[in-house]
Amino acid sequence: MTPGLPMPVPAPGLPARVRIHEVGARDGLQNEQTVIPTEIKAEFVRRLAAAGLDTVEATSFVHPKWVPQLADAERLFPAVRDLAPEVRLPVLVPNERGLDRALTLGADRIAVFGSATESFAKANLNRTVDEALATFAPVVARAKEAGAHVRGYLSMCFGDPWEGPVPVPQVVRVCRALLDQGCDELSLGDTIGVATPGHVTALLTALNEAGVPTDVLGVHFHDTYGQALANTLAALQHGVTTVDASTGGLGGCPYAKSATGNLATEDLVWMLRGLGIETGVDLERLTATSVWMAERLGRPSPSRTVRALSASLGSPDSLDSHKE
Amino acid sequence: MTPGLPMPVPAPGLPARVRIHEVGARDGLQNEQTVIPTEIKAEFVRRLAAAGLDTVEATSFVHPKWVPQLADAERLFPAVRDLAPEVRLPVLVPNERGLDRALTLGADRIAVFGSATESFAKANLNRTVDEALATFAPVVARAKEAGAHVRGYLSMCFGDPWEGPVPVPQVVRVCRALLDQGCDELSLGDTIGVATPGHVTALLTALNEAGVPTDVLGVHFHDTYGQALANTLAALQHGVTTVDASTGGLGGCPYAKSATGNLATEDLVWMLRGLGIETGVDLERLTATSVWMAERLGRPSPSRTVRALSASLGSPDSLDSHKE
Repeated sequence: MTPGLPMPVPAPGLPARVRIHEVGARDGLQNEQTVIPTEIKAEFVRRLAAAGLDTVEATSFVHPKWVPQLADAERLFPAVRDLAPEVRLPVLVPNERGLDRALTLGADRIAVFGSATESFAKANLNRTVDEALATFAPVVARAKEAGAHVRGYLSMCFGDPWEGPVPVPQVVRVCRALLDQGCDELSLGDTIGVATPGHVTALLTALNEAGVPTDVLGVHFHDTYGQALANTLAALQHGVTTVDASTGGLGGCPYAKSATGNLATEDLVWMLRGLGIETGVDLERLTATSVWMAERLGRPSPSRTVRALSASLGSPDSLDSHKE
Repeated sequence: MTPGLPMPVPAPGLPARVRIHEVGARDGLQNEQTVIPTEIKAEFVRRLAAAGLDTVEATSFVHPKWVPQLADAERLFPAVRDLAPEVRLPVLVPNERGLDRALTLGADRIAVFGSATESFAKANLNRTVDEALATFAPVVARAKEAGAHVRGYLSMCFGDPWEGPVPVPQVVRVCRALLDQGCDELSLGDTIGVATPGHVTALLTALNEAGVPTDVLGVHFHDTYGQALANTLAALQHGVTTVDASTGGLGGCPYAKSATGNLATEDLVWMLRGLGIETGVDLERLTATSVWMAERLGRPSPSRTVRALSASLGSPDSLDSHKE
């Protein structure tokens, strides 16, 4: 049975094109316990770009003590930076020291990482929300001076593991602060995956009402409760055209083996292709890349599209044979 | 980390209440290779009802040769039929012989199973689409005479494994025929999981234009490519208020172990609860039922909500301990 790819049937009011911000090589790999050789990571980034992804977050210039997996940023970035002029390679920087390292190597797109909630700011950054914002201010300012594009990630925009549901006005306030500092775009993160479509629409609407235009907003959904694609649909219906996703659904789910954290890029591309929305991505080539990476990680991808398509592609990816 | 349940944030234009047609005990179990004892199945139905599901498809009066797992319909149905007056217990019947068996036992809701495509009608029913419809005619007529409610399942409404995308007018024609025979409601099946939201909206719109009101339409999505919940959202936005789902995502996926076929009821309830849509379902109790059934089947549920929630409920359901 090879059902083929979905029939494109556009839905009214959706964008013609969506830019996928691929986070697999950074957000996806950062929680992997086994250190992956730099050359495998570089090859992963190359394959992602070759599959048509034009925005591939490459690594993080964080202190190696915090994220040992990405301690090789100084070697990785030069290995991929000249990949192709049309491929954007943003890198995460936590502070001015990280920014210096990134700029020295020629990075021209950087990202900072904030929290919408005090609990997560404390747990992840050991700061208050406002102290974290104060830390970013010089990073964003100096990045802009250097001509770099700056993305601001915002975690816990919908729910927080300690605080529960996060009030929309609280998220709007931090978004406004990041934009006022000079961020060119924001990525609204549902870090624990609890968001549902009405909440997504409510936050986007409130941001618009606070003067934030939709075209600076990206969405970053997690599939912990299976909601990521429905939430993405709600965001597209609101006019969002930047969607974060992780090839193969890479990114440690804290709960279960091969369960998923990040929205899988392949599941997203399936929907966008079915909606007739252009992404530039070759889905079969991307799936083959996930299968290749899954073999290196020693476990199957949690992406449903990868599992289904790789079966029809004849991959050995720990798949059962066809049952009926 | 116990994020709790999602914060209800209604979205404009959605129904206030959705009826979940629970198919786990029939559609979910029918492909299980190991025969499950009748008492376990009966207990499963009881627990589903106790979790607040008011429509629990109980079994199938198909020939035991076709579906050995459901060969105990004669013993199962009497064990659950007096469960509670408010719980609907539809049963599948393939033909007049099956109908006789079901009516003799007091079934008052039956379902027939048709195909929108010739290839699947041939493969599954060994008939043409019209021959299958002709077979149903006396079943539906006699069920109606007996005062039973009749549901018509329609497979392959979006894509077919042999034929590819299924033309909307072809589906509309078979839907009209089933309603003209006397079916009270239809369940539009995306049997191989390829549908995307625009396609869903297009089919529902075409059915309305052909004189089929939305309130006789249910949707039955599969999560093979991770699209089921996004498709459900599109159906809700169109006004659909009956959604099929399978507790724990039970239902053999033909491709991969513990990957999913049917939309998991828990993932659906999470979204509906987040949207402020009433279902009557107690999500934690339903999740506990999935965990209980998964233990009997010897493998974890593929539902993401079950995996995440059962971790916080402290279940032993093959889950890893918390990683960070």
